[in-house]
Amino acid sequence: MAMSTEAKPYIIDACQYCNWSPEILGQLREGGVDAISVTICYHEDFRETVENLIDWNRMFERHGDLIMPGRTAADIAVARKAGKTAVFFASQNPSCIEDDIGLVEVLHQLGLRVMQLTYNNQSLLGTGCYEQTDSGITRMGREVIKEMNRLGMLIDMSHSAERTTLETIDLSARPISITHANPNFWHEVVRNKSDAVLKALTARGGMLGLSLYPYHLKGGSECAVESFAGMARRLADMIGIDNLGIGSDLCQGHGNGIIEWMRVGRWTKAPPTMGLGAPVLPPQPAWFRDNRDWGKIRAGLVAHGFTEADAGKILGGNWHRFFAASFEAA
Amino acid sequence: MAMSTEAKPYIIDACQYCNWSPEILGQLREGGVDAISVTICYHEDFRETVENLIDWNRMFERHGDLIMPGRTAADIAVARKAGKTAVFFASQNPSCIEDDIGLVEVLHQLGLRVMQLTYNNQSLLGTGCYEQTDSGITRMGREVIKEMNRLGMLIDMSHSAERTTLETIDLSARPISITHANPNFWHEVVRNKSDAVLKALTARGGMLGLSLYPYHLKGGSECAVESFAGMARRLADMIGIDNLGIGSDLCQGHGNGIIEWMRVGRWTKAPPTMGLGAPVLPPQPAWFRDNRDWGKIRAGLVAHGFTEADAGKILGGNWHRFFAASFEAA
Repeated sequence: MAMSTEAKPYIIDACQYCNWSPEILGQLREGGVDAISVTICYHEDFRETVENLIDWNRMFERHGDLIMPGRTAADIAVARKAGKTAVFFASQNPSCIEDDIGLVEVLHQLGLRVMQLTYNNQSLLGTGCYEQTDSGITRMGREVIKEMNRLGMLIDMSHSAERTTLETIDLSARPISITHANPNFWHEVVRNKSDAVLKALTARGGMLGLSLYPYHLKGGSECAVESFAGMARRLADMIGIDNLGIGSDLCQGHGNGIIEWMRVGRWTKAPPTMGLGAPVLPPQPAWFRDNRDWGKIRAGLVAHGFTEADAGKILGGNWHRFFAASFEAA
Repeated sequence: MAMSTEAKPYIIDACQYCNWSPEILGQLREGGVDAISVTICYHEDFRETVENLIDWNRMFERHGDLIMPGRTAADIAVARKAGKTAVFFASQNPSCIEDDIGLVEVLHQLGLRVMQLTYNNQSLLGTGCYEQTDSGITRMGREVIKEMNRLGMLIDMSHSAERTTLETIDLSARPISITHANPNFWHEVVRNKSDAVLKALTARGGMLGLSLYPYHLKGGSECAVESFAGMARRLADMIGIDNLGIGSDLCQGHGNGIIEWMRVGRWTKAPPTMGLGAPVLPPQPAWFRDNRDWGKIRAGLVAHGFTEADAGKILGGNWHRFFAASFEAA
């Protein structure tokens, strides 16, 4: 397929959390990935999140030939021109702002562009998807939504409970995102999303990033790309093609301990029951082992009736447009 | 009234937050106060709470003739014998444990004996009384209740929403407290409590500390001691005499800024609407200006038909028994 560099659609992944190494960074380049949004906080407080940012500063310093910091959508074109991957910062938990609304702007100044209002549990802002009761957005949550809207920090509700998600879609003056989840109509689990959420999200201009994490896939690690592409087809028919992207949730290079930590954090002395079995990092599906496999997703989508142009939107074009609209100050 | 030192009932206040000075500490002695529970955290995180404990360490060092640290109920007798006031530590917010269940034991080791599961807002543990929606106890909340029960840290729901309070009464293996609030049947405000809560609390052996803070009093600063005593009489008829104490919520020596900080903390950029008007520290009622006035409360209760023995239970006897049961490890 002959396309000019200008015309070639972007490849953008809205959610990765790898155990970053020169090898994995090299795979980003091999796969032609223009931008990734990386998790810089799961359970960390502000100071610990800053420590993760220090690690990233070192990484940019050492591997400036492969990656560069991403702050605006325009950085993605800069990165492509330089043959690098732009790295945007995202937090999966508002633990990084602790109980301090002033830390939203401080973290924005440090490069944070995406933040979940909850991880799995109740946060100070809203309810996570594994709580028994979902009370929606709190007093502090309303204030933080306004502040994120003002600054141009994208709201992400991937791990939030349904009512909290629907309220946020309404309360936010700007479109929000679910960066990494799949529809429940395809594979019904706590972390995937109802039709109601998907329709409300996209009706307001919000984006869904399809997840490639085995727990979110029908058939788990055995999921076939045909099944995934079929789900994307049905979804595009339901909510349109312009609000779909990928948020792979790729957790490459970690041991199983990382999964236990994600579930347990510091909030419990005993591992919780989550209906997910032992805390084990499942193998990736054969068609997305790592960042070298983006062509296989593209091929799967095209084989399932998507045009090249539409496949390009899903693989990155939509996120590029959405990042441009989301990361500017109000 | 001639009583031996042994027989004289204890005076114990389950909630004070003064701007501590030698003058106010001296008033505790003038008033014959045997023990107070002082707030060491409203919005502080762990490190900031430790800073408040450092202030208390200095206070104990400088004013060891007036006060001593309280850790067990037995310390109250020790304090009386030495002519001092025992000072117990309480937190009005679980912000001091941040998101770390391990900090419950650490703070217990540092002397914390009472902790509210919420202040006014949603916490990581449960819902505060000023939230629009009350979702009860969270996943982390269940774990923290177990940990507080194990260690002998008393649960306090003074600032919690109704469902969250009722669930905690059920979930806790040990009786809990509402250290500073009044009944809504007397003065209906967000911070006072329904009959349902008061009955459930005391049916399980829990304690209510009657508040002397003007916003919680019928008539505010103009409230007469007769009205207060009449409320106590009605309450004693409803829930019995053995589960009533005083938690004055005395905030002596502060400027109005302290009230704004209590409401705003760090969670909002704009002062919230709370139906409470401007953030002003109201004048104390004439019959409880400061710690020298405990005799006036006693006189008011006796004038309203309480026996001396029953007035003594309310002024401290009940808290003494309850502290003894609550501050031992399970």
